[in-house]
Amino acid sequence: MALVVQKYGGTSVGTIEKIRNVARRVARTYDDGNDMVVVVSAMAGETNKLVALAEEICEFPSEREYDVLVAAGEQVSVALLAMVLQSMGYKAKSYLGWQIPIYTDNAHTKARIDEIQDANIHEDLRSGTIVIVAGFQGIDRDGNITTLGRGGSDTSAVAVAAALKADVCEILTDVDGVYTTDPRIVPEASKMEKISYDEMLEMASLGSKILQIRSVEFAKKYDVVVHVRSSLNDNPGTLVMKEDSDMETVLVSGVTYNKDEAKISVLRVPDQPGIAARLFSPLSDANITVDMIIQNVSHEGSTDLTFTVPRSDFKKALKIVEEAASKVGASGVESNESIAKVSIVGVGMRSHSGVASKMFTTLSTEGVNIQMISTSEIKVSCVIDDKYTELAVRVLHEAFGLDKGQLTQE
Amino acid sequence: MALVVQKYGGTSVGTIEKIRNVARRVARTYDDGNDMVVVVSAMAGETNKLVALAEEICEFPSEREYDVLVAAGEQVSVALLAMVLQSMGYKAKSYLGWQIPIYTDNAHTKARIDEIQDANIHEDLRSGTIVIVAGFQGIDRDGNITTLGRGGSDTSAVAVAAALKADVCEILTDVDGVYTTDPRIVPEASKMEKISYDEMLEMASLGSKILQIRSVEFAKKYDVVVHVRSSLNDNPGTLVMKEDSDMETVLVSGVTYNKDEAKISVLRVPDQPGIAARLFSPLSDANITVDMIIQNVSHEGSTDLTFTVPRSDFKKALKIVEEAASKVGASGVESNESIAKVSIVGVGMRSHSGVASKMFTTLSTEGVNIQMISTSEIKVSCVIDDKYTELAVRVLHEAFGLDKGQLTQE
Repeated sequence: MALVVQKYGGTSVGTIEKIRNVARRVARTYDDGNDMVVVVSAMAGETNKLVALAEEICEFPSEREYDVLVAAGEQVSVALLAMVLQSMGYKAKSYLGWQIPIYTDNAHTKARIDEIQDANIHEDLRSGTIVIVAGFQGIDRDGNITTLGRGGSDTSAVAVAAALKADVCEILTDVDGVYTTDPRIVPEASKMEKISYDEMLEMASLGSKILQIRSVEFAKKYDVVVHVRSSLNDNPGTLVMKEDSDMETVLVSGVTYNKDEAKISVLRVPDQPGIAARLFSPLSDANITVDMIIQNVSHEGSTDLTFTVPRSDFKKALKIVEEAASKVGASGVESNESIAKVSIVGVGMRSHSGVASKMFTTLSTEGVNIQMISTSEIKVSCVIDDKYTELAVRVLHEAFGLDKGQLTQE
Repeated sequence: MALVVQKYGGTSVGTIEKIRNVARRVARTYDDGNDMVVVVSAMAGETNKLVALAEEICEFPSEREYDVLVAAGEQVSVALLAMVLQSMGYKAKSYLGWQIPIYTDNAHTKARIDEIQDANIHEDLRSGTIVIVAGFQGIDRDGNITTLGRGGSDTSAVAVAAALKADVCEILTDVDGVYTTDPRIVPEASKMEKISYDEMLEMASLGSKILQIRSVEFAKKYDVVVHVRSSLNDNPGTLVMKEDSDMETVLVSGVTYNKDEAKISVLRVPDQPGIAARLFSPLSDANITVDMIIQNVSHEGSTDLTFTVPRSDFKKALKIVEEAASKVGASGVESNESIAKVSIVGVGMRSHSGVASKMFTTLSTEGVNIQMISTSEIKVSCVIDDKYTELAVRVLHEAFGLDKGQLTQE
């Protein structure tokens, strides 16, 4: 008998009929003798509907109230799933974020979980109750509702699994697992049996939309085995887990892309100590995550700074940067929303050289100009014009031997 | 400077545009120098939509989960109203039931408020913040969400006004005030300037849908002046307040009707002590309110018992009564959903005789058969076939001199 946490996304609970399917699957796992905690998202479309209402009011609604608003979505789905399970004869009970409670910091709309009190859930599990937890939401220490950002239900699930020391955290989704790249772009993409936390972290942060990045960080920190699998069948999916020796034999595990960023360049910034801080502090104060940052070689006492921000924060970021730029005496600000980031990821890179240059050569052969480059131990990313995204992904997938049936191990 | 509690119903907050209207009215009262607490219902149609989802699952969904589900409606509207006020430059903050908290008993779907902690609200008011409170919802002492039943936002508003010792509780609605009867049936009906708590209690409980009955009980208990007025204009409405000497000069203040009940008769119940308790205890255990009860004279050791229940509880009640009836040895159960209750109400009745017989005569002259009668100090009610409802209301309204321009004072 194991303790299983299952997470179902919005598509899986989009109608009462689909919720019945979820309930049947939950019940099956329960009947197999497992304790069950189920984390659910809002019914598909509901969050968007609520966000649209907020946007009808103003461009930047109060983030505290925004969280109150959108948290209503999961409140509906947990109640419905509990009702369905009860109507099938199971004991079930819903929990909202504040009822557990799931404590977070107070960064509204993108809060981080810092504590989960699990006493009530344990008591329910002991009595044979299936526990349904609202994903995506928590409360701060002052009792305000917070939300964890898009995809936050994944993090809720992994954090609950970590707190309860669950045996596995199953993420039931509309894909079969984690693929070497987006199969919509490269039909030859293949499903990975397993992937390390670090690789998944790079995949997630680079735009592979399967898991929210924080859920993987959480899983890594607390060593939670995450099983990404289809909600529509019983096929095994992909295990996200600690690195093992098999994984290192593969040079590149996957190719990812991300069209959710925008580029901002601050031109002719005086090259003085402290300038970067004066530009980036206001962004971090506004909770905007800056991704890639490039500073060119100084030229006549000034330098150009280029960086990327999430497209959803782009307008807000641009406004902040324009103010900061004029204060520090920069000559101007340029921006571009038509960019994409293409990356290759793999723990095998650590022990193999020449991976980055192979990537640059592959792209240049196809005439794709590289605007920015950033690298880490296990990934190389290039920012390119977004019209080349699909082309770049296809040629890289093939160049690194990821096309189905031609996996090269070294 | 006063402390004003305003309550807006679902129709008033049905769209963002309507919420803007509400915000403008709230802002106007605030700008006049008042402290403001605003209680809102769910956007029109939302609660019904949520209830329909629950009904798609099963006939009697878990009441705990039902409350979690429907409470999501008000969560949306409070957040939206706070956002609109903030976008207009006002300080505003939303509160859900559990955030105040508004404590209730644990009678899910029809809970009663037993305590409101007002410290946080007072602190916000001191800082000039407009406080927005989710109507209809509270929590029990175990932290489960509860709801107060249809119309519960009225009770939330009055209870909040009582707790905060507000100067007035304005119920903004789609009618101008309390009328002598339903103007859709009797165009000559006129708006009352004021009405006593007791009269309003009879009017509310008898089917005048303007205020939830518990809100009036609360108002009476804590002496809260309730101002029922239109959300569409600034005309004074009707004050619901302590009885004064003016009120007693009017024989009958209003005529009301109620088509929301159903009649159940238990036939040939053995006429023994304790039988009534054995029939009605299971109903009260199921939180079903029995309204009128009539027991006929005993005949050959058995008697017939007839009573009415809310139509919404009818199926549930019938099932319970059928079980109980067979246990006590009754010969059968009959039921009828096609009934209506027509009533006359007025504190003036206390000091005038002959009011009831005038009512019976008026009805019989029109050929309306009376099935059940019940009376209190300030009202007389008759159950009739529901097809005669409109006729009965019209003739009673006229007979007691309530038609506009012919108000008789004695």
